[in-house]
Amino acid sequence: MIERVRVAVAGVGNNTSALVQGIALYRQTGNLVGIRKPVIDGLGVGDIDFVAAFATSEEKLGKDLTEAVFLPPNNFPRLDCDLPPAGVPVTRGLVDESEVDRVAAALAGAEVLLYAAPSGRPRTALAYAEAARRAGVAFINTTADPVARDPESLARFEAAGLPLVGDDLASQFGTSVVHDALLRLLAERGMTLVSSYQVNLGGTEDFRNLVENPNTKKQSKLNALSGAGRVELAPLGYLPHLGSHKVAHLNIEAQGWGGTAVSLDVKLKVHDPSGAAGVNIDLIRLAASALRGGRGGYLTEASPLLKSVPGSAV
Amino acid sequence: MIERVRVAVAGVGNNTSALVQGIALYRQTGNLVGIRKPVIDGLGVGDIDFVAAFATSEEKLGKDLTEAVFLPPNNFPRLDCDLPPAGVPVTRGLVDESEVDRVAAALAGAEVLLYAAPSGRPRTALAYAEAARRAGVAFINTTADPVARDPESLARFEAAGLPLVGDDLASQFGTSVVHDALLRLLAERGMTLVSSYQVNLGGTEDFRNLVENPNTKKQSKLNALSGAGRVELAPLGYLPHLGSHKVAHLNIEAQGWGGTAVSLDVKLKVHDPSGAAGVNIDLIRLAASALRGGRGGYLTEASPLLKSVPGSAV
Amino acid sequence: MIERVRVAVAGVGNNTSALVQGIALYRQTGNLVGIRKPVIDGLGVGDIDFVAAFATSEEKLGKDLTEAVFLPPNNFPRLDCDLPPAGVPVTRGLVDESEVDRVAAALAGAEVLLYAAPSGRPRTALAYAEAARRAGVAFINTTADPVARDPESLARFEAAGLPLVGDDLASQFGTSVVHDALLRLLAERGMTLVSSYQVNLGGTEDFRNLVENPNTKKQSKLNALSGAGRVELAPLGYLPHLGSHKVAHLNIEAQGWGGTAVSLDVKLKVHDPSGAAGVNIDLIRLAASALRGGRGGYLTEASPLLKSVPGSAV
Amino acid sequence: MIERVRVAVAGVGNNTSALVQGIALYRQTGNLVGIRKPVIDGLGVGDIDFVAAFATSEEKLGKDLTEAVFLPPNNFPRLDCDLPPAGVPVTRGLVDESEVDRVAAALAGAEVLLYAAPSGRPRTALAYAEAARRAGVAFINTTADPVARDPESLARFEAAGLPLVGDDLASQFGTSVVHDALLRLLAERGMTLVSSYQVNLGGTEDFRNLVENPNTKKQSKLNALSGAGRVELAPLGYLPHLGSHKVAHLNIEAQGWGGTAVSLDVKLKVHDPSGAAGVNIDLIRLAASALRGGRGGYLTEASPLLKSVPGSAV
Repeated sequence: MIERVRVAVAGVGNNTSALVQGIALYRQTGNLVGIRKPVIDGLGVGDIDFVAAFATSEEKLGKDLTEAVFLPPNNFPRLDCDLPPAGVPVTRGLVDESEVDRVAAALAGAEVLLYAAPSGRPRTALAYAEAARRAGVAFINTTADPVARDPESLARFEAAGLPLVGDDLASQFGTSVVHDALLRLLAERGMTLVSSYQVNLGGTEDFRNLVENPNTKKQSKLNALSGAGRVELAPLGYLPHLGSHKVAHLNIEAQGWGGTAVSLDVKLKVHDPSGAAGVNIDLIRLAASALRGGRGGYLTEASPLLKSVPGSAV
Repeated sequence: MIERVRVAVAGVGNNTSALVQGIALYRQTGNLVGIRKPVIDGLGVGDIDFVAAFATSEEKLGKDLTEAVFLPPNNFPRLDCDLPPAGVPVTRGLVDESEVDRVAAALAGAEVLLYAAPSGRPRTALAYAEAARRAGVAFINTTADPVARDPESLARFEAAGLPLVGDDLASQFGTSVVHDALLRLLAERGMTLVSSYQVNLGGTEDFRNLVENPNTKKQSKLNALSGAGRVELAPLGYLPHLGSHKVAHLNIEAQGWGGTAVSLDVKLKVHDPSGAAGVNIDLIRLAASALRGGRGGYLTEASPLLKSVPGSAV
Repeated sequence: MIERVRVAVAGVGNNTSALVQGIALYRQTGNLVGIRKPVIDGLGVGDIDFVAAFATSEEKLGKDLTEAVFLPPNNFPRLDCDLPPAGVPVTRGLVDESEVDRVAAALAGAEVLLYAAPSGRPRTALAYAEAARRAGVAFINTTADPVARDPESLARFEAAGLPLVGDDLASQFGTSVVHDALLRLLAERGMTLVSSYQVNLGGTEDFRNLVENPNTKKQSKLNALSGAGRVELAPLGYLPHLGSHKVAHLNIEAQGWGGTAVSLDVKLKVHDPSGAAGVNIDLIRLAASALRGGRGGYLTEASPLLKSVPGSAV
Repeated sequence: MIERVRVAVAGVGNNTSALVQGIALYRQTGNLVGIRKPVIDGLGVGDIDFVAAFATSEEKLGKDLTEAVFLPPNNFPRLDCDLPPAGVPVTRGLVDESEVDRVAAALAGAEVLLYAAPSGRPRTALAYAEAARRAGVAFINTTADPVARDPESLARFEAAGLPLVGDDLASQFGTSVVHDALLRLLAERGMTLVSSYQVNLGGTEDFRNLVENPNTKKQSKLNALSGAGRVELAPLGYLPHLGSHKVAHLNIEAQGWGGTAVSLDVKLKVHDPSGAAGVNIDLIRLAASALRGGRGGYLTEASPLLKSVPGSAV
């Protein structure tokens, strides 16, 4: 029997809640619902143990990870399963570089550090990566802040023979995936794109952060879509009552044979944190497998699950 | 300069209207809007001349093809272009096998016969194919009636060294294309399909025929979709005010990570005859190119544009 | 404190399930969610006791009403409340007129008989009404079969001084209500209706019956809408996976100032049996109050809750 | 035959384009499409002549009104009608109070001044009103800037016996009208509102102004809706490709009987300037009729067509 992956998480938000609960649910039911890869390099969905958790919110500190994931502003729903205590108290996360050694010490015994804090704190992201490197732990950056795209960090992980995965996870099933699939379908079938728009609405704390600082993300979203120049993004809408749901309205206007009109309207509703957890479960297994196999540096097999790989624009 | 393809059409309904007008529009504007393949084996979209047209409606007989395409019950809109007379009067089409030689004689000079009559008259379809064979003309069956799937017909075309293309064209951009693309996308991303439905509404004479005789088409539609067993089709709705529009409402309910809900609602609105013409323009060029190159029998390069190829269920 | 209304039900389908469970839920929570009238003539939502229940399905006979409501083909969901046994075993319902006296005897002690069987059995409806009359019980006909519109039945109830309410309840919130409100809004604002359609999809046994026998209902639906002549109904679609949900897709195309286009697309999703129960709770209280006050015959105060009142077409 | 109303317009944007063209279209066709009131106090839709027009854009100055309405950034479409020159050159509009007398002089012969400039310039609005008053002309304020709500202005119009209509016209058929109608319908039927959102997208210059200065308008929109506290507005989205279209996505989540879910999704697409013109045509006739009848001050009969009447919050 394979040894479970020992994972530390930095950030105890909705995405961590979805990950922690989803693994527990899978262990209880064995049900592969919503799972892209049942097994990666011998590692199943349930083969993950949490061994450390970092957060900055006072309310979460000291609580068991399985309890902290339900504290506000987290609003991912409670899944229908027992959630036995992880035996992992949430400890104080990094605020500045002076704390790298403290965190590195707390990572003793971990194989992978999943960095799942909000985007927008590039120095914190780099500091966590450095702590992972010092502790001999693989690092996954799920945020839009550059870590794998930071040449210095990447070089250090390569030198240390430690896996570095990032940056910015691509949701398992979200607006970009659907919008891009439809735009590509139109092009394949010879339709001529006239115009298209995308409206994104959400109710999580992450979404609120994006609304207040939309620019980087907006460009990154446009880059992810075909049909450049004809696709417009409406401003993100933070609507608290949506909770952890994300709702997107897409419209595509095109022309077919003889210039006749083709129109497509789509409403998509998903739980945003589920789209992250469904990718994180794969990134963790890829990173652990590489670490155990002695492969360091960037893992190209992770690229389809990421938005910004090393070398792409920062 | 390449010689234009000489095409005869059997059936002067909406699909023929869209084809005839779209070619004229393209010739005037050179605009490649809605066109999948600008050139196939050297043949452009404008490199098609109509040389004969068959219909059964008394009103259309004797009229120039470019005039007949606007007569009721046709309701495809008049495109914004001049439509110079084709110099091709609509002649009486086949009703029974005794007329095969008459039609064969009328096909003299044609290279391709596009069979674009309503589905549901299998003997008529076979008789037109036989007329084409006798006249040394390639045959395209755009209907759901079996011709390429008729082993005897296929053998005759092979023996004669004449191309035979069919059966049942797949719309360039219609409900099945979109629904199937979304169902496959869900599966690729690891989503678990819970249920899905498809509602199709239309206002053409073809659509009315389908509504009155839905069974074959319904099965064929379900076969075209992934997610077998979880997709339900609502009965087709003939709504005259839609004219030549087709409207589809699709719903997909799925589960992602942790069993959380994923829901997709789509409205698609297209001109049905445009979806046929955009494929017929390719089938004609494939058939003409094969005929000129001396290749007979079924043309495998046409398969992506067809719903039912030789060997599939009748 | 007011005496509770003693109600008998004929038909133990989804609508009865919704009614029985909803009353229990209200009693536990006191929550007025989804309730149009908290109190009618002193009677609250919880002031109803079931005292008899009739059904024809062998599986339901002998079971307590609160157990029978969950047996297939019923598929209304189990609400989140305790459902204490009603102490009312389901007894064999009427099949022909010879059983009227047996049913009348079983109605002893009841004040109101709610006739909630499937539509399409007019003689059964009349026979239940006659049993109610003989037992001195008020009668509510929730089906499209004519009872209040049957002059003879109405005369008998008037003569007996017993309330008769019917026919065919108007859903508390369903497709017709929304579609008609929007069509009236357009007219009030001076918009010119061009076309409109309505697609109804459902997954209950009642819906399956309608699909198989759509004609009467279709006309009744069209009558309920403004914009006569410009509204088209797609055929009803029975989609089992919808369970007790009803889904409607509405489209309205209109013209505003200068003839410019106005378009409205609506998707409505409800639980069909809830729409019935939310009206039945009012009809029961109106009928009981009239009975107790000694008023017989048709109750005009029920008209807004009904589709077909006495005098309207059968 | 009634004397035509002599109207001056301040602002030659999309709303004026829609008004000028729609009147010409009506005169040619007599078609009452999209018209709420064919006749008001004897005045028909065609009984309006433009006698003066003010604008600030250099490109429009000196052009005939019927030519200026098509200049960018105006993007309301050209309606399908002849548009004979009005014989009214666009003249320089007010920029500050020093120009009131010049404008008043230019209003000689007019009966009504329609103030149709962009919102957000309260002093300009008041100055135009003052010019109208000095010229003895009725004033209509279609913007959100306070004029009828300005007690001093109102008092002056009352004293002068001149009609004053405002502020902020309610679109003939727009998002607020539809959203509010549905929220009221839910309440009438006893549904319990859980949450609702509204997304507004548009492509006009007016819309761009709103996007850049959303606050006042947002509050005004919320005030216009029932269901206070449960309705959320997404940020306005300026999407240039929409041109003069406005698109709204509405969602309403509610609970019916037994707390079961009710959900409504609506997409509305209209031409924004048509919604303004369809109301302006009525306000002009109300103002002219009052002026001719010697009634001054605020006209209460205009209230249903306005968002903010005298006395409401500024």
